[in-house]
Amino acid sequence: MGLEIERKFLVRGDAWRKEATGIPYRQGYLCLDRKRTVRVRTIDERQGLVTIKGASTGATRMEFEYPVPVQDALTMLDNLCEKPLIEKKRYTIRENGHTWEVDEFFGENQGLVIAEIELTSEDQEFTRPDWVGKEVTGDPRYFNSSLIRAPYSTWKKT
Amino acid sequence: MGLEIERKFLVRGDAWRKEATGIPYRQGYLCLDRKRTVRVRTIDERQGLVTIKGASTGATRMEFEYPVPVQDALTMLDNLCEKPLIEKKRYTIRENGHTWEVDEFFGENQGLVIAEIELTSEDQEFTRPDWVGKEVTGDPRYFNSSLIRAPYSTWKKT
Repeated sequence: MGLEIERKFLVRGDAWRKEATGIPYRQGYLCLDRKRTVRVRTIDERQGLVTIKGASTGATRMEFEYPVPVQDALTMLDNLCEKPLIEKKRYTIRENGHTWEVDEFFGENQGLVIAEIELTSEDQEFTRPDWVGKEVTGDPRYFNSSLIRAPYSTWKKT
Repeated sequence: MGLEIERKFLVRGDAWRKEATGIPYRQGYLCLDRKRTVRVRTIDERQGLVTIKGASTGATRMEFEYPVPVQDALTMLDNLCEKPLIEKKRYTIRENGHTWEVDEFFGENQGLVIAEIELTSEDQEFTRPDWVGKEVTGDPRYFNSSLIRAPYSTWKKT
């Protein structure tokens, strides 16, 4: 078991892309309760993972992650998970001594790009690169689980 | 991934007990949808398992089972699973070339005893021992998942 502490931001422009290479992620949910989520993920169609997370308190939540055979993960994604699945590319970007994960969404969430930074404590300080925009930590619309029930393409643009 | 084919029966009397030794099982559910369940189980407080099952078709359902650290399983049971948890003892009984699993329930399901036989096909034949009573395969009241929402102690006895 681990505790996940992460902050989430919108991304501005394309400067972050530089030479970053995106890895394809597919994921779906077996469970989307307020109190816990159960996620199935494949990374590059080569790794399978089942991840169980508790409810968030601030930027922190309980997390359990287990590797599973990729064929199991693909079968669960196709047969058991809620639809639509989430399809994205994940870019790992190292800046100012911190690792950012930038998720570029496709399918029904095309157009959405989110950056996440994983921290060791909620008040850990870090420098925001120029391409990091508005913080959306704790905004439920941006939870991956919400992007299934209300994909980005259905949002009213304001 | 496996396919689980099992038939389930009520148990009559105590003849099945003989020298059988029960092993304590605790289990809870992260997810109880019609389309899939996600179960956390500890066996004898020494083994942890996460099991994902699809919807039943007859006596058959898709099943994925993964061992997890027992401490993870205990933390998930206490913090993330729906309550009440299911507490039972499982007895493994070999009769007429088949293995029966008899579950004796405690807590809010005290008084309920169920026997299950796992088969390799839905039409596989087997001999019922005298202590095996009415078949309840497919009766949703006896799903372990139902025994959380409507425990045996709350049933109207008829």
